[in-house]
Amino acid sequence: MAHIQLPEGIPGIVGPMAFSPQTAKPMNELADILLRGKNSLSPAERELIATYVSSENDCYFCQHAHGAVAAYRLGGDEKLINDVKANFQSAAISEKLKALLAIAGSVQEGGKRVTSEQVEQARSQGATDKEIHDTVLIAAAFCMYNRYVDGLATWAPTDPEMYRETGKRLAEHGYAASTAKLAGA
Amino acid sequence: MAHIQLPEGIPGIVGPMAFSPQTAKPMNELADILLRGKNSLSPAERELIATYVSSENDCYFCQHAHGAVAAYRLGGDEKLINDVKANFQSAAISEKLKALLAIAGSVQEGGKRVTSEQVEQARSQGATDKEIHDTVLIAAAFCMYNRYVDGLATWAPTDPEMYRETGKRLAEHGYAASTAKLAGA
Repeated sequence: MAHIQLPEGIPGIVGPMAFSPQTAKPMNELADILLRGKNSLSPAERELIATYVSSENDCYFCQHAHGAVAAYRLGGDEKLINDVKANFQSAAISEKLKALLAIAGSVQEGGKRVTSEQVEQARSQGATDKEIHDTVLIAAAFCMYNRYVDGLATWAPTDPEMYRETGKRLAEHGYAASTAKLAGA
Repeated sequence: MAHIQLPEGIPGIVGPMAFSPQTAKPMNELADILLRGKNSLSPAERELIATYVSSENDCYFCQHAHGAVAAYRLGGDEKLINDVKANFQSAAISEKLKALLAIAGSVQEGGKRVTSEQVEQARSQGATDKEIHDTVLIAAAFCMYNRYVDGLATWAPTDPEMYRETGKRLAEHGYAASTAKLAGA
């Protein structure tokens, strides 16, 4: 049971967002810009960063929702999502994305854990300042979203099919629109 | 030196926000709602929660900037801010705020660290669902802001007078307005 009275049967972050639509608005706007805005990192790459950080934070809802978005964008490749969560260094992704995931993993532990060597490694694989900035901010933002979801003890469905549907909807319509729909707004 | 090329001489979070105004907008909007919006928790109480979490995350810029806002709102009581950071249980604050700070401290460690007992304790001191929700989200949001500031290795001034001025400006004009001004927009 959630720590506060939330609308029943609404999964994960959508419950507290329905409870507090005023704060949900900028939170969804930030997610839409970071994960779906114009960017040299593909939406799938950015969703993989979000999924990895959520997995490191042990947030069931976020890692499965964003993992489903990434899988949908990669033509249903759920194995790759699981590979990245288990050990991204051996996953079938670019060396640049591996370097960015290493930075994201440090941010998850704490901002000061990011090293100049990690940033140099990303740069040597072609990462730009904007890509490094966005990686740090995606990782930081999911340290917020994950804590919001778990700090209120929200309900998370366990049916993989439900996450596949959510992933498709989020990929096609974005965060602000999907959250409003799920919350019944 | 920051991990990416940021405008020089701009303190803390303002550098990356000048680098990325599109993401700064919802981040400042969220801060203005959480810390300055209409609420049964006073702005000073909410700034104390933000300061405490930033201190636990060892983020120099955020703990001093928000500590200065809280001190300004409390008539310049900098000792209270330091007492809360050092040991809030023995600080001269309400039992309700102590219970909320305990929840915030758990969120800082990780969302799942919040216990039903902590929530019950807050409720027994009169905390409402909205106050518990806002405490969790303020703490979660500062886990983002702190990581954004330190994950990019931004520059933080050490002159206490500079933070006093910042605290006054933030208290009087808010986050979106002050950030735009500091960033030279």
